[in-house]
Amino acid sequence: MPTSIVMKGAMQAYIDAFNAGDAAAVAALFADEATIEDPVGGQIRTGKAVILEFYEQNVARGFKLVLDAPIRGSHGNAAAMAFTATDGAIQVRVIDVMSFDEAGKFTSMRAYFGPEDILT
Amino acid sequence: MPTSIVMKGAMQAYIDAFNAGDAAAVAALFADEATIEDPVGGQIRTGKAVILEFYEQNVARGFKLVLDAPIRGSHGNAAAMAFTATDGAIQVRVIDVMSFDEAGKFTSMRAYFGPEDILT
Repeated sequence: MPTSIVMKGAMQAYIDAFNAGDAAAVAALFADEATIEDPVGGQIRTGKAVILEFYEQNVARGFKLVLDAPIRGSHGNAAAMAFTATDGAIQVRVIDVMSFDEAGKFTSMRAYFGPEDILT
Repeated sequence: MPTSIVMKGAMQAYIDAFNAGDAAAVAALFADEATIEDPVGGQIRTGKAVILEFYEQNVARGFKLVLDAPIRGSHGNAAAMAFTATDGAIQVRVIDVMSFDEAGKFTSMRAYFGPEDILT
């Protein structure tokens, strides 16, 4: 199991790669059969190709992510972070929870935000 | 499924009851067979009696919870919030994720914090 500090490093790398507009670098943080559920309660997307496409679309929209508080680790194989995503037109208040494999890759990402967490 | 706004109300009630030192009111927000995993990766506690005891102990330690950012809902039966718990001696940076039943009671609570999220 990766340490809490290693998991936080991967979360920060996710933020940094996303903000650099590098969807491939974001997707590279995920395990091959990883799932993303964004938003929680919505469609679950599975696998690297689909995940890459998802991030290409979001990066293309110009979203930037700003942490609202320090990233949290855990005593298990998961970590969580609160951030705000903005593309200049809207703001989305999100908490992401990632689970990790032994290699420190994300096996799942779940994005918690409700309809009213999208501010225009 | 409770609305995202209803779920956020229950999360805020959890913060308020905890800070009022009312462990019974905190426990009353949980469903009968709810589980708590605090921290994530640690022991899973099940059922109202055990949950009440857990909160009685934490309230007795004098912990107070301060939100770090607005509570997040979701498009499913879950919500999440980032907060800092402090008892005057230590600070713990936490993200809690709760899942909900149809009545709006918590069916699970998972508290994400790593060893290095405890600041002295």
